[in-house]
Amino acid sequence: MIQRLCVIGVGLIGGSMAKAARSLGLCREIVGLDTDPDNLARALALGVIDEGYDIQENGAIGKLATGADWVVIATPPGASLKTFRDLQSAWSQDTIYTDVGSIKGKVIAAAESVFGEVPANFVPGHPIAGAERSGVEAASTDLYQDKRVILTPVATTNPDAVRAVEGFWTALGALVSLMEPLHHDQVFAATSHLPHVLAYALVHMLGRKDEQEEIFQYAGAGFRDFTRIASSNPEMWRDICLLNGEQIIPLLSGMGDELKKVSSLMENSTAESAKNLLVYFAEARDARQRFLNQSSSDIGSS
Amino acid sequence: MIQRLCVIGVGLIGGSMAKAARSLGLCREIVGLDTDPDNLARALALGVIDEGYDIQENGAIGKLATGADWVVIATPPGASLKTFRDLQSAWSQDTIYTDVGSIKGKVIAAAESVFGEVPANFVPGHPIAGAERSGVEAASTDLYQDKRVILTPVATTNPDAVRAVEGFWTALGALVSLMEPLHHDQVFAATSHLPHVLAYALVHMLGRKDEQEEIFQYAGAGFRDFTRIASSNPEMWRDICLLNGEQIIPLLSGMGDELKKVSSLMENSTAESAKNLLVYFAEARDARQRFLNQSSSDIGSS
Repeated sequence: MIQRLCVIGVGLIGGSMAKAARSLGLCREIVGLDTDPDNLARALALGVIDEGYDIQENGAIGKLATGADWVVIATPPGASLKTFRDLQSAWSQDTIYTDVGSIKGKVIAAAESVFGEVPANFVPGHPIAGAERSGVEAASTDLYQDKRVILTPVATTNPDAVRAVEGFWTALGALVSLMEPLHHDQVFAATSHLPHVLAYALVHMLGRKDEQEEIFQYAGAGFRDFTRIASSNPEMWRDICLLNGEQIIPLLSGMGDELKKVSSLMENSTAESAKNLLVYFAEARDARQRFLNQSSSDIGSS
Repeated sequence: MIQRLCVIGVGLIGGSMAKAARSLGLCREIVGLDTDPDNLARALALGVIDEGYDIQENGAIGKLATGADWVVIATPPGASLKTFRDLQSAWSQDTIYTDVGSIKGKVIAAAESVFGEVPANFVPGHPIAGAERSGVEAASTDLYQDKRVILTPVATTNPDAVRAVEGFWTALGALVSLMEPLHHDQVFAATSHLPHVLAYALVHMLGRKDEQEEIFQYAGAGFRDFTRIASSNPEMWRDICLLNGEQIIPLLSGMGDELKKVSSLMENSTAESAKNLLVYFAEARDARQRFLNQSSSDIGSS
């Protein structure tokens, strides 16, 4: 049993981990840190945490993480360098550290730059959960039920620490898999980061048009679903884009090429280009069907 | 009351109109035409239509539309020129004709090219409903409940015919509005056609990657929603793209520019470009919020 769980960043992700851990009896006490005093007050009022402290308070992170046998870093990915620095002086060999950032390469690099090498008891992780909602009031005990969690240990990571973090997530109902950090960042650039940028870009472009009100008025369910991820937290997505730009930028350029390809098929108006356009759309539909078949045969992607 | 409703194309859209019209007692008998004999057999078996005929049968459309006081053209938009030609010899001044095509300019131009001018009793229409499902078994009586229907009459259209079609859709629970055909095509290029092309292009690009299986395996709910429209009917979207290319192509090129803009903000890695990236995402999120606010204050877009 975890004696003192320290959750740094009590938002949807960290808050749900705290709630689930408590409801499953996985920990004795929970202490939370957050940059937002209102969110912290709500986390306390909701009983998600037993003690709550302002992250910006001088040395707060280090002080509170002392004595914690489990530390979950659930701050925005852009804050990880600062968080490791704050944790450095109080870093304990007897504590398990893990994070929840959607990019792993740069988080691991941040740990390496602070500690000289990636600490053996830090297990980088990424739960594939959460959505546009944010803040502790959106947290729920079953957020991770049947969701995937990816752990990306490196050569220096202690296998016992990996097993401990894996056990924690499994207890929360998640399906855990291991992946190379760089490979993780490549896969998620394609499956998550690129679609987010596309959705933001589309809504931004349409939102600048004179007829935007009319465009939005006649937009139906397809548009609503397509743009749902454009309601995501802008700070988090700025961080992700800046930290994983190396993987995302080539995909954006690839998408530009795809759009040109489709455009030229539409422009040509020959029987052959009409046929190629049909083939293109049919192949895309079939690819999505492969995705759906994979999802339905697999509890992790729902 | 409609005596004999002729539905050309008994798929999701035409089939739902037939089912709803019958269940509301708006018509006495319904005759359906379709290119797919299996679909036709199902439409008969399900009681959606009273008589069913193969569209490809020589002169079938013309023969069946004779005696119909209402004709709904619910064929794919690319077939409208052929449909008007088939209907020409049996065209009756006492009949109301309407269609359901997602693009209006080229459908109207097709009518004009066949009849010399757009017939006064043809009311071009576009119900904003339907999804990835297709075929008569997906048809339902409430498909149009609280959905928008846009009618795009032209100068020659008889206002009484417009009122009749408006009354029909209103009886089916839809919210009817009128729009200029070209303006309709511009608005829907932005709100519907562009997102469809983006979804197809994204899935096509990812589906060609070596690691596609892994990409799809780790894709979550965001990806599923974002790409839902890539499961749409490829034939219909080929038609729409070819018929409305004039409006869609500039938007695709605009999207290409947006992606370059975001890319360069990600590349620069200056404090200013980080700030601009945040502003860009925040503005997009706010634009989507305007869309959501509009949808929720408005029965038509759900």
